[in-house]
Amino acid sequence: MANITKKVSWSSRCDEFGAVGEETPLLNGSDQARPLRQIGRLSTVDLEEEIIAEEDSASGRPKEIAHNEKLLSLKFESLDYDNIENQLFLEEERRMSFLAFRCLEISRWVICGLIGFLTGLIACFIDIVVEQLAGIKYKVIKENIVRFTEAGGLSISLILWAVLNSSFVMLGAIMVAFFEPIAAGSGIPQIKCYLNGVKIPRVVRLKTLVIKVCGVICSVVGGLAVGKEGPMIHSGAVVAAGVSQGRSTSLKRDFKIFEYFRRDTEKRDFVSAGAAAGVSAAFGAPVGGVLFSLEEGASFWNQMLTWRIFFASMISTFTLNFFLSVYHNKTGDLSNPGLINFGSFESEAMGYNLYEIPLFMAMGALGGLLGALFNFLNYWLTIFRIRYVHRPCLQVMEAVLVAAVTAAVAFIMIYFSVDCQPLAPDHTEEYPLQLFCADGEYNSMATAFFNTPERSVRSLFHNPRGTYNALTLGLFTLTYFFLACWTYGLSVSAGVFIPSLLIGAAWGRLCGILLASTTSTASTWADPGKYALIGAAAQLGGIVRMTLSLTVIMMEATGNVTYGLPIMLVLMTAKIVGDYFQEGLYDIHIKLQSVPFLHWEAPATSHWLTAREVMSSPVICLNRIEKVGTIVDILSNTSTNHNGFPVVVQVSVDDEPAKLCGLILRSQLIVLLKHKVFVELARSRLTQRKLQLKDFRDAYPRFPPIQSIHVSQDERECMMDLTEFMNPTPYTVPLETSLPRVFKLFRALGLRHLVVVDDENRVNGLVTRKDLARYHLGKHGLEELHLAQT
Amino acid sequence: MANITKKVSWSSRCDEFGAVGEETPLLNGSDQARPLRQIGRLSTVDLEEEIIAEEDSASGRPKEIAHNEKLLSLKFESLDYDNIENQLFLEEERRMSFLAFRCLEISRWVICGLIGFLTGLIACFIDIVVEQLAGIKYKVIKENIVRFTEAGGLSISLILWAVLNSSFVMLGAIMVAFFEPIAAGSGIPQIKCYLNGVKIPRVVRLKTLVIKVCGVICSVVGGLAVGKEGPMIHSGAVVAAGVSQGRSTSLKRDFKIFEYFRRDTEKRDFVSAGAAAGVSAAFGAPVGGVLFSLEEGASFWNQMLTWRIFFASMISTFTLNFFLSVYHNKTGDLSNPGLINFGSFESEAMGYNLYEIPLFMAMGALGGLLGALFNFLNYWLTIFRIRYVHRPCLQVMEAVLVAAVTAAVAFIMIYFSVDCQPLAPDHTEEYPLQLFCADGEYNSMATAFFNTPERSVRSLFHNPRGTYNALTLGLFTLTYFFLACWTYGLSVSAGVFIPSLLIGAAWGRLCGILLASTTSTASTWADPGKYALIGAAAQLGGIVRMTLSLTVIMMEATGNVTYGLPIMLVLMTAKIVGDYFQEGLYDIHIKLQSVPFLHWEAPATSHWLTAREVMSSPVICLNRIEKVGTIVDILSNTSTNHNGFPVVVQVSVDDEPAKLCGLILRSQLIVLLKHKVFVELARSRLTQRKLQLKDFRDAYPRFPPIQSIHVSQDERECMMDLTEFMNPTPYTVPLETSLPRVFKLFRALGLRHLVVVDDENRVNGLVTRKDLARYHLGKHGLEELHLAQT
Repeated sequence: MANITKKVSWSSRCDEFGAVGEETPLLNGSDQARPLRQIGRLSTVDLEEEIIAEEDSASGRPKEIAHNEKLLSLKFESLDYDNIENQLFLEEERRMSFLAFRCLEISRWVICGLIGFLTGLIACFIDIVVEQLAGIKYKVIKENIVRFTEAGGLSISLILWAVLNSSFVMLGAIMVAFFEPIAAGSGIPQIKCYLNGVKIPRVVRLKTLVIKVCGVICSVVGGLAVGKEGPMIHSGAVVAAGVSQGRSTSLKRDFKIFEYFRRDTEKRDFVSAGAAAGVSAAFGAPVGGVLFSLEEGASFWNQMLTWRIFFASMISTFTLNFFLSVYHNKTGDLSNPGLINFGSFESEAMGYNLYEIPLFMAMGALGGLLGALFNFLNYWLTIFRIRYVHRPCLQVMEAVLVAAVTAAVAFIMIYFSVDCQPLAPDHTEEYPLQLFCADGEYNSMATAFFNTPERSVRSLFHNPRGTYNALTLGLFTLTYFFLACWTYGLSVSAGVFIPSLLIGAAWGRLCGILLASTTSTASTWADPGKYALIGAAAQLGGIVRMTLSLTVIMMEATGNVTYGLPIMLVLMTAKIVGDYFQEGLYDIHIKLQSVPFLHWEAPATSHWLTAREVMSSPVICLNRIEKVGTIVDILSNTSTNHNGFPVVVQVSVDDEPAKLCGLILRSQLIVLLKHKVFVELARSRLTQRKLQLKDFRDAYPRFPPIQSIHVSQDERECMMDLTEFMNPTPYTVPLETSLPRVFKLFRALGLRHLVVVDDENRVNGLVTRKDLARYHLGKHGLEELHLAQT
Repeated sequence: MANITKKVSWSSRCDEFGAVGEETPLLNGSDQARPLRQIGRLSTVDLEEEIIAEEDSASGRPKEIAHNEKLLSLKFESLDYDNIENQLFLEEERRMSFLAFRCLEISRWVICGLIGFLTGLIACFIDIVVEQLAGIKYKVIKENIVRFTEAGGLSISLILWAVLNSSFVMLGAIMVAFFEPIAAGSGIPQIKCYLNGVKIPRVVRLKTLVIKVCGVICSVVGGLAVGKEGPMIHSGAVVAAGVSQGRSTSLKRDFKIFEYFRRDTEKRDFVSAGAAAGVSAAFGAPVGGVLFSLEEGASFWNQMLTWRIFFASMISTFTLNFFLSVYHNKTGDLSNPGLINFGSFESEAMGYNLYEIPLFMAMGALGGLLGALFNFLNYWLTIFRIRYVHRPCLQVMEAVLVAAVTAAVAFIMIYFSVDCQPLAPDHTEEYPLQLFCADGEYNSMATAFFNTPERSVRSLFHNPRGTYNALTLGLFTLTYFFLACWTYGLSVSAGVFIPSLLIGAAWGRLCGILLASTTSTASTWADPGKYALIGAAAQLGGIVRMTLSLTVIMMEATGNVTYGLPIMLVLMTAKIVGDYFQEGLYDIHIKLQSVPFLHWEAPATSHWLTAREVMSSPVICLNRIEKVGTIVDILSNTSTNHNGFPVVVQVSVDDEPAKLCGLILRSQLIVLLKHKVFVELARSRLTQRKLQLKDFRDAYPRFPPIQSIHVSQDERECMMDLTEFMNPTPYTVPLETSLPRVFKLFRALGLRHLVVVDDENRVNGLVTRKDLARYHLGKHGLEELHLAQT
């Protein structure tokens, strides 16, 4: 077993695979990585690859491969956005009256409303709990500091602070590392993958949600350089996946409602709505939420769907807003639409001039550079973590260490800071620390560190000139940059949005201050708050590289359309500059997991590839009426592990291509085997009830593995008639279709299998997600990723 | 010739069809309309239809059919969003380096920037000219009224007003009716159709733009109940279509740039950007613009495209904003992002309570009802106009009549109004009319009528309580409702957005006033401005029935996310209630033109239809190497007028289906014939240069008709080899594919022709837009529209 290697990955604790005992890291040194060949003649390269793969699989063990981001994992399955229009389905649809469709439509709306409502409630819960706990924590520490400032012995305060932080973080890290590793991080990469059509195991389960919510509270209260916004997106998605199915597999409750929606097509639509509701609750940006979902998930734009997604977003932001207003004793004041909002930028005081736009764009470029640096550091850190920090206890220890270091660094920074500011009569600082400042003054560094990051961002945006001096901001940027970079990827639930905004706001404000000090005229227009906003946008754009949705989110969070153009230009510049060096943070993490992620279009220079070169072949086909034994053998073959099988008129013995007549999925075959839908049995037991769509829906989404289905030796000789269950009209393309054309069809319809046929309609190959995802545009033109079983 | 009937339609002046001399209206009474059969067995109905159609066409004249909205016109052609991936295209793409693709991408961005800039400039031009001219007009009339109020003889003022208005409107109507009828109306239905994939003749020409811009100025200055916002969308689209092609066919100038973009796929993308830029300039709503384009146009969501569209929108709104700020001597104040903006609704003064939401929804329902009434009246008016008012001179006369009546009604309303309001010291009214009010007071009815509608809307939103009394508002709503209804559909360029908002704002404010007067508590929260906003949203939603984009447009125009939820709920209610009675205004006009418009999804209850029943068959196929004579004959056959021809291995004599090997378009064949690409000539003249993609692009989009191409008797005997030019991998579906599945493929990929093949890959039929568009969900279930040659 020494050769079975395993990555510490999103799905590392897949119980499905049973005994995974030891967890040797996959990476035995990336220098072993075979150099990637430039694609010369793909067809030959392809064949070679396949032969190697087959040899390995034949010897019964997955090939040990060096880990790097030039791999595509075969372990991820695809979602099936294409309806399986088999006879059962068509019969059901034909039986349904217009009224029934209306009812379905209404229940979709109800579900979306529920999703929005619950997501808003969760956001509200997180916000209130964090505020309460953080309030207690800061009050205790503040009292302690005040007590020891005069008396000396501030080291005790430091220890208190570090211990408090570490214990919260430890709690969160233990939950995540030991119970549900998929709940780590912001969850945005995972949701991106899910919406892209990749099935990430355990990502939309109830347990994940619970751990995520508790985890994020712990890490924010624990004073890590994290935000609570990213996880909201994941939470919304889980809520959606749960509510829309009308049952919980974890709780073993089936409410017998919404059974029609128990398939990938419908579920993914609801998950889009959930993700949008999450964004909306996090940033008070309902339109931004819709655009986020569309940017990540949409293939075919569906107006009613979009409209429903918008409804969910809207309900979510208003639920949050309403309950928070009740909590703050300002019932009905709906002006705090999100977990974070940037406060209002009044256009008169904060207007910008045309000649500032180049300045903004320069800041965008700087944001792109810093973002690329952040991503680069985080990339190596992640590699390091995958290689060495893969045991849960190590992960918890690292998290605790980070928490302690964060507290210590903050304390030292505050301690040595000499930036004292007079306390305004109506001071907005929640916990002003006097420390060594004169009476009536407070330590300015402390407002940045000794606060939840959301508040710090807001004070950087809105505090009047002179609230911070340049040195404070510079030091703060420097330390927070590295702290945030170290924190992202820890085994705790937390987002990177707020830290990015905070770093950017700090150096943006610094830019504003420097500008004002260099020229005398600039001091009239160089409002530091304005530059903090631009810096925040630049830094966030440089790190996550989202485009349209981020612009709209920022616009909605500032509540001001006037800043639309500069924010957009800044985000564009940051993206262009950043992309030159390094990908976006989420994309890096997706790549490190070797997820077969489909981008929007095929690589521009791939017109010379055709379906013939891209497809997998030969394909395992089934007969219309097939022997049970053959089916069981095919499904049990772990080396191939295919999920879709073309059904042909007659499989020929010499592997000649046969005429296509349908497509059937592994999951369907398993249900058929489980219910023993054999021709012989049907004849003998006439009373046996016909298999219905309901049987497939009940098994969805956790279809049993083939190993759990017992088929006796007698039964193996029976026959199965697939006609009724297969999809008789799968989409096909001819052999000579160019890759961009194949890609477009595949992507636009959200397919999982695309059959490649010759001009006689005979099955020549099958195109799946991995076949398309492995071509990507590298620095040196078109590159092909390796496929790996891990 | 008496039997050749013609509709007065969007494309009534198609010079292509040559001598159209007399313009007898198509409608000889809609009672002649054959009752629509419920679809029983479609296949038989189909056959019957075809036989009738064939009989008619055989006798050489189009069938005279009664006009109603249950028809689909065959005269509209489709855009081809699918790339023709023939050998020429693939060779070009394969030759292109990665750098070349980058350059293309950059030029796309440059074009979008230009589109935004020019659209913004046009909006700015319209705004300034309207403001200047209207200012002069109102000043002249006001002076006149002031002079005659005391002296008596106000009838002279009335005449002056009516004459001034009528002359402006006459000018506009003459331009539109005589020179470019397609420039009439808002242009939104036409752009909707274009983005949907229907080629509307002359809709994106330069001449149309010029007439549109001048026309809209005339009609707004002429005091009609119209707005200048709708036409901006059309203007943006024309700008986009012009700029992106790098040439103007009207001006006969070819700049030899952007030649790559000379095809439907690229052009439609740019037109989307143009429409978005138009919305953005009109309402200061860049995000709303993007969503409008997506809602109307998107099939496959493309992230880079959306991002570019957003860029164009953003540039457009900021160009407008910047130039307007310069014009208003407030350079750099970018707080007026659109032609209309609703002013800022401060959330404190204008907050709403949860218990107001049912009230809002009731107003939404009222808006839906009034909208349905509006649409119903306008529907019959349009039918009337199609039947009787189809000559240009009659159209001009009607427009002049409406202008005079509008002025007269307004005058009478003002004259008899007794609603005097004290003039505030910093009065916002531009032209306060004292009339019979005491000194220091002004006539409140006059502020509503004696003003550009944009200003009236704004004052209804923002004027303090008590500015209008209930009677004034009620009378105003009543008269303006009928005036606006009469005006829409006149042969002038004008939009319906602003009149709808104005009607809604008036009755909304009335609701607010009534509410405040009924209960004593209500007077504290029932701010009339807030109810005016909700009423405006309800009325607009009830008339146009847009959903997502309209919500976002309204949100951006109010500059306030707080009103998002109520606006959305109101628009939803208005749409649901309105849809119960009547379709949206734009949809009605599209239907009256019998445009084969594809909705988002196939009708819900159409699963029992398959490609076999839906497709057109038999199909005219061509051989791979075909005789020139045959091709010319097929193309010249006016009775069929097909645009796409499957290429097969060997056309059999007895109409047996033959094996598919490609698809070729009429336009391609015409270019081939024009350049005489015959096998024999290629052999004899070896020096003849090979046909290139450029030749096709140069001919785009106005391919010559087949009649203009001379083919000698000798040449008719030559052969043409289509292999290189046909698309060798057209999308196909099997015969048994269900209609929703066919529809999804067709819609998602923006196809024009979809070949239906049997299990031997033989051509059995062809599905085009009309085959899919004719199924729609009526009151009594699935209905089928008739196809008509007009």
